[in-house]
Amino acid sequence: MPTTTPALSVPAAGKPFGAIELERRDLRDDDVRIDIKWAGICHSDIHTIREEWGLTPFPLTPGHEIAGIVTEVGPAVTRHKVGDRVGIGCMVDSCGECEQCKNGNEQYCEKGAVFTYASEGYDGELTQGGYAQAIVASERFVLSIPEGIELDEAAPLLCAGITTYAPLKRWGADKGAKVAVVGMGGLGHLGVKIAAAMGAEVTVLSRSTDKSADAKSYGAVDHLSTKDEKTFDKLAGTFDLILNTVSADLPMEDYLRLLKPFGAMVNVGLPTKPYSITPGSLVHGDKAIAGSLIGGIPATQEMLDFCAEHGIGATIERISADEVDDAYDKVVAGDVRYRYVIDTATIGK
Amino acid sequence: MPTTTPALSVPAAGKPFGAIELERRDLRDDDVRIDIKWAGICHSDIHTIREEWGLTPFPLTPGHEIAGIVTEVGPAVTRHKVGDRVGIGCMVDSCGECEQCKNGNEQYCEKGAVFTYASEGYDGELTQGGYAQAIVASERFVLSIPEGIELDEAAPLLCAGITTYAPLKRWGADKGAKVAVVGMGGLGHLGVKIAAAMGAEVTVLSRSTDKSADAKSYGAVDHLSTKDEKTFDKLAGTFDLILNTVSADLPMEDYLRLLKPFGAMVNVGLPTKPYSITPGSLVHGDKAIAGSLIGGIPATQEMLDFCAEHGIGATIERISADEVDDAYDKVVAGDVRYRYVIDTATIGK
Repeated sequence: MPTTTPALSVPAAGKPFGAIELERRDLRDDDVRIDIKWAGICHSDIHTIREEWGLTPFPLTPGHEIAGIVTEVGPAVTRHKVGDRVGIGCMVDSCGECEQCKNGNEQYCEKGAVFTYASEGYDGELTQGGYAQAIVASERFVLSIPEGIELDEAAPLLCAGITTYAPLKRWGADKGAKVAVVGMGGLGHLGVKIAAAMGAEVTVLSRSTDKSADAKSYGAVDHLSTKDEKTFDKLAGTFDLILNTVSADLPMEDYLRLLKPFGAMVNVGLPTKPYSITPGSLVHGDKAIAGSLIGGIPATQEMLDFCAEHGIGATIERISADEVDDAYDKVVAGDVRYRYVIDTATIGK
Repeated sequence: MPTTTPALSVPAAGKPFGAIELERRDLRDDDVRIDIKWAGICHSDIHTIREEWGLTPFPLTPGHEIAGIVTEVGPAVTRHKVGDRVGIGCMVDSCGECEQCKNGNEQYCEKGAVFTYASEGYDGELTQGGYAQAIVASERFVLSIPEGIELDEAAPLLCAGITTYAPLKRWGADKGAKVAVVGMGGLGHLGVKIAAAMGAEVTVLSRSTDKSADAKSYGAVDHLSTKDEKTFDKLAGTFDLILNTVSADLPMEDYLRLLKPFGAMVNVGLPTKPYSITPGSLVHGDKAIAGSLIGGIPATQEMLDFCAEHGIGATIERISADEVDDAYDKVVAGDVRYRYVIDTATIGK
């Protein structure tokens, strides 16, 4: 018999969240059941619930920044045991056999990764996410949260953390590298913390500089406004890497000018308009513009271990279940420092 | 007293080449005088002479694919001696002291590299290129041409060779990598030879496939037409790296679709229109679009050594000085297999 768990669910497009009893599957041999303690609110939850990325299957429980404690394990489980501190991020299944899976890039599974919510599982069931008190998933997609990170501060690492860690690592935010982080929101504030911990010299670029004190406390050496045209002259040819965490339509040419030769601008957001890029602004300077989408499971565990080693957690605001609708509006307005996490114990209370 | 050398020169925009006596400077302490045997015709020579890249200083002798023999060395020269087989590429000077120079990326010298022709030297003189019987340059910019490459087949390596070698090496055309080379001209045919020698599995993509036999003899496993829409369906998700050697305005999205996750499309040409790139086509797949401009002096020497080791030279058509104007028209029409090299002994004859 499947068990049920209190969860927040949206019944149809445009409706608010309500508490329901969500069914979770019986444990398969390799499954882990997790008592979810905290669930982060990611901007992509909002895009999905508001159908800004196409049709959404309702009713839906979103949430892919999940942190909790293992309460039960299937007989074949070896990686986790009851009582372990664990997390689940954006994915809950993949084929495990293709080139991408074997390389630890399950997000690009050739059969198609199963995402944590709004995705069809290999069993044909719609996945339901982490705004709930429990979840069941294959141990392969359950990450260990090391001692040294509180569960509430760990939850946002499962998406926002890996989304910034993976491109920073791949594109060389090494010791001494000059890195700009564009945007100082849920993603950006973690990009700053992680890049600084990697040894990079970090500058934050954003329209407003009202979060400068925070940026510097997270390790940035500078924070400049992109509304000030002098910023672009002052910083021309400065950066080895620009991590762009915003989804606004930025003038890419202006940012490419800020790169040193052989520099890269890596984007994790999805603006609505195509980039317009003069070929010469890439050729002259051997520059690159790239995209990056979350990261694989081995990289996610590596990120969690790195964050624990460097004392990095997300900076959060804890909210209760009845505040989620309001929190969505605040995230869209940029009114959060820097990530809302839902205390799942309050669901249905 | 400066010496003079027979050279081909264009006196003013729109005029044909004529033979002149070109002045070359007296040897400085670190200078090498070279008896030029062969000079390749690069498409950028044509762009410059035809003022397609802005105003050109006339009279001008172009040419930056230079191969010959050392005839005299300054007292401080240690790298080369009389009788050595040597070449000069796109650059003849740089500051030697900035971060870029120290890293062997003289093309991005912070003081400004001095290019082989149409560039102002640090002495204030306009540089004049290699369509001539002799040239004088600092030994730092004189490359050794190893035994095993004929001088005529070596000349085009000094620009076309490094222009393709540098991005293939940087972006991972390693053993087993799947690499597409777009275009099968002066650059493309060397891209195929070099990528295949690096161990990559090379596919050529171009409008016409009438050079397929050549492509395969250079090491390509396949050659497909980009006029056939089925090519893009058939090859979706295939390549780790696409080296685009053409300057036509290609539909970038179609090519990005051909990349595997984490793949890169690197462009060495300069189309006239901006690229239009949907952010999602980079983010979904962690893909990159990059540019690449020639390469530094250490990389150029490495490329020459690599080509010698693998028996790679340019495939050339030898022409005499009186054929250069005609050859320019043929290059623009794509009617050359694959590089014209001028027998400089015919200048003024």
